[in-house]
Amino acid sequence: MSRTDRFFGVLSPVVTPFTRDLAPDTDRFIRHCEWLVSQNCGLAFFGTNSEANSLSLAEKTELLEALVDAGVDTARMMPGTGACAIPDTVALTKLAVARGCAGVLMLPPFYYKGVSDDGLYRYFAEVIERVGDAKLRIYLYHIPPVAQVGITLDLIERLIAAYPETVVGIKDSSGDWSNTAAMLDRGWPDFAVFSGNEKTLLDNLKGGGAGCISATANINPGAIAKLCEVWQTPEAEAMQADLLDLRLAVEKFPVIPSLKEVVAHYADDPEWARVRPPLDPLTGDQRAGLLAELRRRDFAMPGLVREPA
Amino acid sequence: MSRTDRFFGVLSPVVTPFTRDLAPDTDRFIRHCEWLVSQNCGLAFFGTNSEANSLSLAEKTELLEALVDAGVDTARMMPGTGACAIPDTVALTKLAVARGCAGVLMLPPFYYKGVSDDGLYRYFAEVIERVGDAKLRIYLYHIPPVAQVGITLDLIERLIAAYPETVVGIKDSSGDWSNTAAMLDRGWPDFAVFSGNEKTLLDNLKGGGAGCISATANINPGAIAKLCEVWQTPEAEAMQADLLDLRLAVEKFPVIPSLKEVVAHYADDPEWARVRPPLDPLTGDQRAGLLAELRRRDFAMPGLVREPA
Repeated sequence: MSRTDRFFGVLSPVVTPFTRDLAPDTDRFIRHCEWLVSQNCGLAFFGTNSEANSLSLAEKTELLEALVDAGVDTARMMPGTGACAIPDTVALTKLAVARGCAGVLMLPPFYYKGVSDDGLYRYFAEVIERVGDAKLRIYLYHIPPVAQVGITLDLIERLIAAYPETVVGIKDSSGDWSNTAAMLDRGWPDFAVFSGNEKTLLDNLKGGGAGCISATANINPGAIAKLCEVWQTPEAEAMQADLLDLRLAVEKFPVIPSLKEVVAHYADDPEWARVRPPLDPLTGDQRAGLLAELRRRDFAMPGLVREPA
Repeated sequence: MSRTDRFFGVLSPVVTPFTRDLAPDTDRFIRHCEWLVSQNCGLAFFGTNSEANSLSLAEKTELLEALVDAGVDTARMMPGTGACAIPDTVALTKLAVARGCAGVLMLPPFYYKGVSDDGLYRYFAEVIERVGDAKLRIYLYHIPPVAQVGITLDLIERLIAAYPETVVGIKDSSGDWSNTAAMLDRGWPDFAVFSGNEKTLLDNLKGGGAGCISATANINPGAIAKLCEVWQTPEAEAMQADLLDLRLAVEKFPVIPSLKEVVAHYADDPEWARVRPPLDPLTGDQRAGLLAELRRRDFAMPGLVREPA
């Protein structure tokens, strides 16, 4: 791919803050997005870590509209728009394209298990035809540990062949480096392969990948973005090791509530800690353990706006 | 449970017909529901076999409104209303209660895997509190082979204890008779245990269960309803064997498109055969094989209205 005209580097699956009555907190959401962009991090909001499937279409519509209205750079936006129902995927994708988002990240429909590549192909094709916009750029979202429904290499090739200008990349959250490597090996032209986290970021970049879309980019965006800039320098290996070390520390705890607790702590804003059911908040012990891991590493979130007391 | 004041017998997870442009076909849907009721079969529309998660909330709202407006008996209605996002579940559940549906069948949120019973409890509790209607009757929907997220016996007991008038039954589509038997053994008062299909219907009824909610009730409702009436008579074992035989014949093929092909064939109405992606229609060979299995059994759908040619 040409690394200048499409996404390159790190994007964050932006965590979604909730008010006391569990409604999306639009103001805090926008502020967190603004901070992420200030750290040279793209915005893959409405991802798994965003609790996007715990949000209604109406709630996602409002958040997307508000974020664009706030003047945040749409060239950095890759909202998740894939849902089980074609009309839902089409509605949110159309909105994203209409509001200028540079791309969308698209889950396959994930209720039925064991569906065929044919069925998934017809799903994506139907969405693309219904959106019917030459500006649409789809990044496929392969996350079999959660969605259970994956996206095979054959399906990717079939979609690229049919829609070369539209199907332009993938996020590989398989957790299986051999799958990422296989995608890179295919050498699809102008196709952006993002790792699902920063644990294999340097290997991905060396293999021709485009960067990563990572949960921990919510709290550590600057350091990940930096590696994407200097990956060809001698410092890169040590930076990768530091990223891995922090990631593994966070992964000792349930990731989504952990990210929110970290933002809550470093913004001095306990409101951030809420999750929607069926997710659980951290226990007190988990929270203390997580923050101790971070303190031990002199972790900081530079430039994060603290909430007024 | 008192078998006269709540659901008892067979309900069909009503298959959803689609028009040429893959929109829900309201007229055909209502006609099929009317036929099912004429066969003494309840209406668990918006289930797995209904492709309900491939429908948008707006589409489900329209279908439910149209079905009630058509005068179909709401005492026979148990629409599926569970979605991943609490606001979606609440919206459809509120509508079902407002329009007089006697119950709703509720999936747990199914995107995140490995969630805790605590998280699921808070999900259901939040839905119940938000709906806030004493008329609400929830039948839990346990279908781990598809949803992957199941409903444990402990979670059921916790929900019954907190909401005894609201959480009144379950559909067990685990495919594991020992799980159904364990639920019956608990002897929860006034709690209706439905088998997920008719393969263990007689055992379920003998154990105090309330009947079954079965895919094949879309095509064979009368015979299943009959067994629910006469299960204490000497003929019951032979009837159960016949039901099992037909069920196993249908299960040789992908079930959802098979049900639609059978309706299409016996109503002489090829429009019925469409499925929404990601599901696949039957191949020609599958269709021929399925219809041959049915012919071999002198299968019929008495009273089914044939479409005008």
